[in-house]
Amino acid sequence: MSVYFDNAATTPLAPEVLDAMVPYMKEHFGNPSSIHSHGRKTKSAIEKARKKVADLLNTSPSEIFFTSGGTEADNFAIKRSIDTFNLTHAISSPLEHHAVLHTLEHLQKIGKVKLSMVNTDGKGNIDYDHLRDLLQGNSRSLVSLMHGNNEVGNLTDMERIGELCKEYQALYHSDTVQTMGHYVHDLQKLNVDFVVGSAHKFHGPKGVGFLYVNADAKIKPMIYGGAQERNMRGGTENLYGIIGLAKALELAYEEMNEHRTSIEQVKLYMIEQLKHKIAGVDFNGESGNLDKSLYTVLNVCLPPTDNADMLLFNLDIHQISASGGSACSSGSDVGSHVLRALDRPKDRGAVRFSFSRYNTKEEVDYVVEKLAEMYTVSDLS
Amino acid sequence: MSVYFDNAATTPLAPEVLDAMVPYMKEHFGNPSSIHSHGRKTKSAIEKARKKVADLLNTSPSEIFFTSGGTEADNFAIKRSIDTFNLTHAISSPLEHHAVLHTLEHLQKIGKVKLSMVNTDGKGNIDYDHLRDLLQGNSRSLVSLMHGNNEVGNLTDMERIGELCKEYQALYHSDTVQTMGHYVHDLQKLNVDFVVGSAHKFHGPKGVGFLYVNADAKIKPMIYGGAQERNMRGGTENLYGIIGLAKALELAYEEMNEHRTSIEQVKLYMIEQLKHKIAGVDFNGESGNLDKSLYTVLNVCLPPTDNADMLLFNLDIHQISASGGSACSSGSDVGSHVLRALDRPKDRGAVRFSFSRYNTKEEVDYVVEKLAEMYTVSDLS
Ligand SMILES: Cc1ncc(COP(=O)(O)O)c(C=O)c1O
Ligand SMILES: Cc1ncc(COP(=O)(O)O)c(C=O)c1O
Repeated sequence: MSVYFDNAATTPLAPEVLDAMVPYMKEHFGNPSSIHSHGRKTKSAIEKARKKVADLLNTSPSEIFFTSGGTEADNFAIKRSIDTFNLTHAISSPLEHHAVLHTLEHLQKIGKVKLSMVNTDGKGNIDYDHLRDLLQGNSRSLVSLMHGNNEVGNLTDMERIGELCKEYQALYHSDTVQTMGHYVHDLQKLNVDFVVGSAHKFHGPKGVGFLYVNADAKIKPMIYGGAQERNMRGGTENLYGIIGLAKALELAYEEMNEHRTSIEQVKLYMIEQLKHKIAGVDFNGESGNLDKSLYTVLNVCLPPTDNADMLLFNLDIHQISASGGSACSSGSDVGSHVLRALDRPKDRGAVRFSFSRYNTKEEVDYVVEKLAEMYTVSDLS
Repeated sequence: MSVYFDNAATTPLAPEVLDAMVPYMKEHFGNPSSIHSHGRKTKSAIEKARKKVADLLNTSPSEIFFTSGGTEADNFAIKRSIDTFNLTHAISSPLEHHAVLHTLEHLQKIGKVKLSMVNTDGKGNIDYDHLRDLLQGNSRSLVSLMHGNNEVGNLTDMERIGELCKEYQALYHSDTVQTMGHYVHDLQKLNVDFVVGSAHKFHGPKGVGFLYVNADAKIKPMIYGGAQERNMRGGTENLYGIIGLAKALELAYEEMNEHRTSIEQVKLYMIEQLKHKIAGVDFNGESGNLDKSLYTVLNVCLPPTDNADMLLFNLDIHQISASGGSACSSGSDVGSHVLRALDRPKDRGAVRFSFSRYNTKEEVDYVVEKLAEMYTVSDLS
């Protein structure tokens, strides 16, 4: 059996999405900036895709800008909001993705902003009172706090953060890469200035994403060039990518409840089975708590063992794809900055399992069985 | 008959390229940063693609960085070389693409650099003596001069510019978007620090390109995030795009001479036929001169007429796709900055025809016939 439990890293392209893309790879290839029929055809396809994304998020197409992915969208929102509005202070958290943290750290290093980190508890939850203090005690801020954490699945309260930002006239960017297509984002209801999407996290293509920019927080471009994206992002458009993104988001919204129910079952079942089969198992961050975490992510804290570093390799040998957290596991030697920010026993291996609508309870059985075997073997060794 | 003569805007995807991409859209979808088998498979495909591109350009894979296209690559090289090496002066030309010009103009506006424009003659040729003067009279410069112009096809002498840059220790960026895959670039022989490629200009996919960064001119990243591209460009890779880019460049190099010969025939034939059938026809920039211009581009200066603005629309009605130059023709109302930089009669329509290996003399016959008809009709009106 081969099991793919690494859907927070990337998801397989849905066949319906590929079908939507292929005609634009084969027949309709015009440059959307060209005025002849080939160009008009692809231009209109891109604008339809933009309208689709805007409709799903309950906003206007004029606020949606396609990018090369979530990382570019995060960089774009952060760098250019700070430049455009002359912000000198930013607030973020140690659990953010590197697309946010490294960007902010760079801006701090070159003296563009002072960067404050909001306090988090041992499970990685944000201290909202501290956030208020930081907003109060500083000049106008950019707040960058993700919606769903990619490693431990912790959810933040976007409504609450939005209200606080409104009260202190801060700009609010939320890295929504892990929730886009998995949760409803109603941009009329949320007081948020920038949210982002990355198609490959919701069964769309890799290398394409988007940035939502609230009309009241219009920023300057980051990549200069042609008049594409209404002068906000130069470069010939990733035509098939954009078509695929919109199709994938449409599918995601159409069956969000069904997908959610089925994935939640898988996650709950895995929690149950792990508790049952592996004594001393625990869950990192809030990932064991269905109300406070992404239904797609379960970050497992395994009992102490001598060869925690080998966990992923052993899973891989059994054709189980999951993601790490302990040092070495990510292929780099620095380990996970998110796990380091949590209160947890350092001698215990961490494995992130992340699910999609294509996963099943049978797969959970197989994975838990293999994990349990590893622990039995290591107990004997 | 339907004729696509707008290959400088974008080219159709070669079927062989699509075939190379499809397995990565269907089966091999792992995130290249993941350490399990799905990730290793795609990681190795990306590194193979990088090696292929590097081999073709006679350089090292460590100097090739994949981007979302030519525009991002131009922005990246320009912005980050200026930042990294604290350059305060840049030299460019009024004929550059907006990806270069708008980036430099922005950097000038925010006070990062002083921008000097090298003189050009009525045909758009660079004044190399003036370039030397500019290099001599200023602090260490970034020189950004394109290899092949996208509107009038003018070629610059990369060897000569490289030598000058070496003499004055300037950094040299060349926007090679229009020549990549159409001419040989031997990066061991050229004294150039940055060149760029955009796959959709050589029958590869849209939304992917690359930047070559000379190891001696290592710059800082522009987009921060994960450790992708050896920490030089964050963001989950456009996997299929990169696979397609490498395949397209490989095909382009394999049959470059054959393609060149056949496209040159088409261009020469069109020059001949136009001269023969339309009295007073001329060619903008150096595009009528095969030695001094891209073999893929012919920018035609048509006789004075009342409805020059309608030229492209009339061609489009006859299913001929070409690109404009006169006001309105580009869909924007500012017209072409390249044509404005040339000495040419303002009352004459300009149409850019640009060719690929898929074009034929029969198509030229059809296009010239239709153009000639338009001129006959307008003469009578
Ligand atoms: C000379 C030149 N530079 C840069 C670009 C931009 O490349 P891309 O379309 O990949 O962003 C183009 C094409 O549009 C071009 O012709
Ligand atoms: C929370 C979060 N933000 C940003 C990103 C970056 O998105 P992309 O892979 O499209 O660059 C990712 C995924 O890698 C993510 O999980």
